[in-house]
Amino acid sequence: MLQSASLRSRRLAIGAALLLAATGCASGRAPSSGGTAAGPPAAAPAPVVAPAPIPTPTAAAPLKEFGTMWTFDAPPLEYWKARYGFAPDQAWLDHVRMASVRIPGCSASIVSAGGLVMTNHHCARKCTAEVSPPDTNYVERGFAARSLSDEKRCPDMWADQLQSIEDVTARVRGAVAATAPQAQVEQRDAEIERIQRECASSMGLNCQVVSFYQGGMYSLYRYKRFDDIRLVMAPEVSIAFFGGDPDNFTYPRYDLDLTLLRIYENGRPLQAKDYLKWSARGAQENDVVFVTGNPGSTGRLLTVSQLEYLRDVQYPAQLAGYARQLAVLRELASRSPEAARQFQNDIFSLANSEKAVTGYLAGLRDSTIMARKRAFEADFRRRVAADPQLRARFGGAWDAIAAAERELTSLARQARYHGFAGGSQLLTYAAQLVRIPVESAKPDSLRLPAYRGPALDAMRGALTADAPVDAEREKLLLATQLRAAQKELPPDDPFLQAALGGRSPEVAAERLVSETKLGSAAARRALLDGGAAAVTASSDPLIALARAVDPLNRQIAARVARLNDVISANAELVGQAIFAVYGKTLPPDATFTLRISDGVVKGYPMNGTIAPYKTTFYGLYARSAAFDDKGAFDIPPRWETRRDRLDMTTPYNFVSTNDIIGGNSGSPVIDREAQVVGLIFDGNIESLPNRFIFTDEVARAVSVHSRGVIEALRKMYDAGRIADELEGKRASAL
Amino acid sequence: MLQSASLRSRRLAIGAALLLAATGCASGRAPSSGGTAAGPPAAAPAPVVAPAPIPTPTAAAPLKEFGTMWTFDAPPLEYWKARYGFAPDQAWLDHVRMASVRIPGCSASIVSAGGLVMTNHHCARKCTAEVSPPDTNYVERGFAARSLSDEKRCPDMWADQLQSIEDVTARVRGAVAATAPQAQVEQRDAEIERIQRECASSMGLNCQVVSFYQGGMYSLYRYKRFDDIRLVMAPEVSIAFFGGDPDNFTYPRYDLDLTLLRIYENGRPLQAKDYLKWSARGAQENDVVFVTGNPGSTGRLLTVSQLEYLRDVQYPAQLAGYARQLAVLRELASRSPEAARQFQNDIFSLANSEKAVTGYLAGLRDSTIMARKRAFEADFRRRVAADPQLRARFGGAWDAIAAAERELTSLARQARYHGFAGGSQLLTYAAQLVRIPVESAKPDSLRLPAYRGPALDAMRGALTADAPVDAEREKLLLATQLRAAQKELPPDDPFLQAALGGRSPEVAAERLVSETKLGSAAARRALLDGGAAAVTASSDPLIALARAVDPLNRQIAARVARLNDVISANAELVGQAIFAVYGKTLPPDATFTLRISDGVVKGYPMNGTIAPYKTTFYGLYARSAAFDDKGAFDIPPRWETRRDRLDMTTPYNFVSTNDIIGGNSGSPVIDREAQVVGLIFDGNIESLPNRFIFTDEVARAVSVHSRGVIEALRKMYDAGRIADELEGKRASAL
Repeated sequence: MLQSASLRSRRLAIGAALLLAATGCASGRAPSSGGTAAGPPAAAPAPVVAPAPIPTPTAAAPLKEFGTMWTFDAPPLEYWKARYGFAPDQAWLDHVRMASVRIPGCSASIVSAGGLVMTNHHCARKCTAEVSPPDTNYVERGFAARSLSDEKRCPDMWADQLQSIEDVTARVRGAVAATAPQAQVEQRDAEIERIQRECASSMGLNCQVVSFYQGGMYSLYRYKRFDDIRLVMAPEVSIAFFGGDPDNFTYPRYDLDLTLLRIYENGRPLQAKDYLKWSARGAQENDVVFVTGNPGSTGRLLTVSQLEYLRDVQYPAQLAGYARQLAVLRELASRSPEAARQFQNDIFSLANSEKAVTGYLAGLRDSTIMARKRAFEADFRRRVAADPQLRARFGGAWDAIAAAERELTSLARQARYHGFAGGSQLLTYAAQLVRIPVESAKPDSLRLPAYRGPALDAMRGALTADAPVDAEREKLLLATQLRAAQKELPPDDPFLQAALGGRSPEVAAERLVSETKLGSAAARRALLDGGAAAVTASSDPLIALARAVDPLNRQIAARVARLNDVISANAELVGQAIFAVYGKTLPPDATFTLRISDGVVKGYPMNGTIAPYKTTFYGLYARSAAFDDKGAFDIPPRWETRRDRLDMTTPYNFVSTNDIIGGNSGSPVIDREAQVVGLIFDGNIESLPNRFIFTDEVARAVSVHSRGVIEALRKMYDAGRIADELEGKRASAL
Repeated sequence: MLQSASLRSRRLAIGAALLLAATGCASGRAPSSGGTAAGPPAAAPAPVVAPAPIPTPTAAAPLKEFGTMWTFDAPPLEYWKARYGFAPDQAWLDHVRMASVRIPGCSASIVSAGGLVMTNHHCARKCTAEVSPPDTNYVERGFAARSLSDEKRCPDMWADQLQSIEDVTARVRGAVAATAPQAQVEQRDAEIERIQRECASSMGLNCQVVSFYQGGMYSLYRYKRFDDIRLVMAPEVSIAFFGGDPDNFTYPRYDLDLTLLRIYENGRPLQAKDYLKWSARGAQENDVVFVTGNPGSTGRLLTVSQLEYLRDVQYPAQLAGYARQLAVLRELASRSPEAARQFQNDIFSLANSEKAVTGYLAGLRDSTIMARKRAFEADFRRRVAADPQLRARFGGAWDAIAAAERELTSLARQARYHGFAGGSQLLTYAAQLVRIPVESAKPDSLRLPAYRGPALDAMRGALTADAPVDAEREKLLLATQLRAAQKELPPDDPFLQAALGGRSPEVAAERLVSETKLGSAAARRALLDGGAAAVTASSDPLIALARAVDPLNRQIAARVARLNDVISANAELVGQAIFAVYGKTLPPDATFTLRISDGVVKGYPMNGTIAPYKTTFYGLYARSAAFDDKGAFDIPPRWETRRDRLDMTTPYNFVSTNDIIGGNSGSPVIDREAQVVGLIFDGNIESLPNRFIFTDEVARAVSVHSRGVIEALRKMYDAGRIADELEGKRASAL
């Protein structure tokens, strides 16, 4: 499933994308990790392959490796027409756009005249838990409202419906008059803020300026927000996420990763003009299908040196960090069944990130993929160099990025260890408490990025909240972090010296965690309220450690921030250059805004044989039985007792070549008639490298099949009311 | 399934192994192919990796990469004891050996007191077809004898039971007094012949001298042959080979690849003293299991230069040849449903070889595998070089082999095209007809290898047999062969000049095939009977072509034969050196003689998730439904109508880490109590590189589960009689 692509890289990457889009600084840079160990220094980049000439993309054949996440204001109609013999008209596009909604961190769609909304189970899990009565847990047990009055309002859920898109690039650019980079950024951000404010007040809409092509283009996205959203139906998590962590990001799959919500307006079900009708036939092999949704973040415009940094520095360190944290959590979980339950979610979340990053890294280590990236970049730079104007504006961007990446590489280890990344909550508290007085005294724009505006408020909130700290876990995490630091840093490193004081990592961690008072919210609040003076006076050993490291740490963090600014600014130039050279024929990187991707329902070669385009309910029971119904392969009781009601050959999940990524969770899959044939919930393992270069030989999007949804609603959940509404057999929701 | 590994590489490789073993020349060299295009010339070998010291293997830890195909006279008891806490005694080993039998091209076992024999469906398919009555086809429809009298005698089936093994190395070596290599070979072969004859006449047994370690050791294997073998039960081929070509060599799998035979002695069922009891429990995860059987051919002792020749010259040419022939056959098959049926088997056989060789090549191209091979060889050579005696005897072998491989590489293209390999039957006839008079006039030992002894008789037989020749197929094959030759040979090449005579490949092929008379058995017989004079006088255009090429061809063929002798002789030295340095702690390469392999029942990481250790009947129906019951995934009628009788969760197939290869088809999988828990029928795709280096991280042997066999016999085939006999619920076969 896209779960973690969504749950995790969504939380991080989409957050980052939104933030960066808002500031106009979307660098496409993958979010920095909690990993703490550096890999080897970046290898010198291999010489650029003498490239075969790359064809300039045309409407009929865009450069495939940039994928198919098209914006609704630039659909590749001629290409679709040439490829599929199908070019939707504007009414089709408008209808589909209006039927697609964005919900927190995910995608969704309106699928009945009465405002039913279809999304993934994992996209509404918070709501499903929150509306559960005290005596039962709908996440575990499932839920299907028997009537409208039984539908449960979700406390924090909203749905944004995209009303219009307007190109505001000229206005944003026109507002930038300064020459100093810092001032330029401020002028641009102020103008973006102004545009958003004006839009919101004049139209009563939720407005957002989105940066595309790493700043090559700015568009104003206007949304209507619905905020009365109610839970209609959610299956048991064990069937929604059947196969659990092992099967996550893979196919063949057997998940009913579905939740149905309903939009209410003025206390009544939405009377939807634009909704997606349900296909009785559902997805079949070789069908052309479209996916609408909000992909969160891709890195397809990243330069080769940026990819090499990810490959050689960031991802290896991230993976080493995950491995260390997982070792600690698994050790703790093995101590008792209770501990196993307690750490289950954290372990899943980390294992999931580990799997995703392993997949990304495999892509970057694939010599074919990198050779194609190099060939494209060489061609692109040649085209820029051939035009004196382009050369003057953009020609230096790649080398500037490469130089910054090289310096980042040289700083990476110190930045990681001195930044206290690595999973110890107490160490993070200490670093923040020491730094907040200093940073908050500066004007916002001069602070380190993590200490600006709302981020600082959130940090203060977390510091003063009453969250229990698990001392045993802290000791193990701190010890593993110190052991790694000992291996990677020189013995005279000030962090190492201050942290160890001549002790072994285990003894030092034991002492620091036992003696610190930072586990108490009151103690943290006192330090926060006491400001610089309190921090200076504190004898807490972790505060002392943070104080000792901070001066050096601050220098490095400032330098890293500066280098990231250089990379962002030059990435923006690269984005403008892409736009100048190739126009809108290349879809921009994902930005958690609405896209439409074309694809085909299709099996693929896998492990020496063929993966079928679909699975069936038989497959669900087969996979469960192969593992003796154990662990992640246990089927919920309802699915055992009602098994014989099912038509076992009903299509259940299927794959297609659509271009999706975290944030697309909950996207509808529709046919040419804009009818729902499926529900996206994951990509296969082979699709992970699509983050950087799109391929569709074996990469696939994974969906729940529309026929599987109806079969499950009717046979398992006695939810004929809902199935009828989806199938249009009832006039309305009432 | 091991089918083709067996059907094809068995037919070739095992044939080769037997032949080479009989002549004492087992070079481990993979059989030469029907491929006709050379790959690029062998790349210069990469410098030998500076190796970490390789531990000398000990009884407790043999060098894992040489696998676990142990001979029954050198089982690694201490290693088993250390690893599994289990060391069988001599009685256990003797019992298991006597219960294991060899049948043509496959392995089998005695599994009831009444002489029931278990093997794979594909190992007895010929018998199953031959005993079918005129109005039905047991291969398609399945068969289960209702009583003893209903059991059908197989015309050409036999079963060899290994009675004893005797080391005859000293006697074979002692017989070699000559110094000239050719004379040495003759003396050795004569002695082997003498040993076999003496054994046969004195003991009434079927006796074979087998060469191990490429000639490092000779053993006399004495077999008792049973030749009244009857068909008891065979399922439909569509369930035995469910998944067909796509699923072949893969897992998860859902095949009932089973046939049950019975040994009769004096017209009555064998009263077997040694038979394998049936396990009611069957294989379960983490069980230690043993496989007995006759693996056909491996290349684990090949030197790095031999592997590089396979990687860079032979396999690429072989694959190119398969691809050309497959293109022709698929083109022909597409012309009508009748043609599709006609070419189905040939296409399958070639596609299967293509899949296998692709897997082997992938292993050789895996840099980790080759690095391990290099490291081993460097260590091995260092050990040889460190001992003056060993150095004097064996030190030069590797360089001699490498030099011969280099020369073979330089001759490869001409040898292939001038040898007329490539699939055209008519061209092969022509070459043989021209050459037989010349070769048969020489003493046997001076002939080209293909024209010696029984091989020549077989060739004459095939030439005079009345086999129809498909002219259309011949034209297409010849044209594709000529096109490939045109690309790879210099324009003045005599074969090209003679074959084309200035015409295009298509026109030349059309003319040659239309005008030749060699499609007629009578014409061929006339030429064969007419000898050299008839050949010289013939105006047949293909004979003329063969005459024109023969002088050059003969030179190259003789040189290739000489180089192969050099390689064999030096490979024998390497084998003796392995034996001298590492002793019997390394199991010898496969020789289609009885081995016992230890392993563990175990799932493995696959495509981002876990392959379960077992599949169930649910999985069978799931895989069929995912492909809409089409093609290779169609389930036979009986399995549709009786579906609800099955306990769908019964284990059906499973995987284990045992070391198997083509020839192991039909091997029993047994537990510590020597009870049958499964029936080997294939390896997964990840196991193909095991041909050269054994690994068990993801490589697995694939078996039918003993419980699946019983469930199918009782529920699908009403064969309680047989199931009861297997389970020991009936005292005898009667």
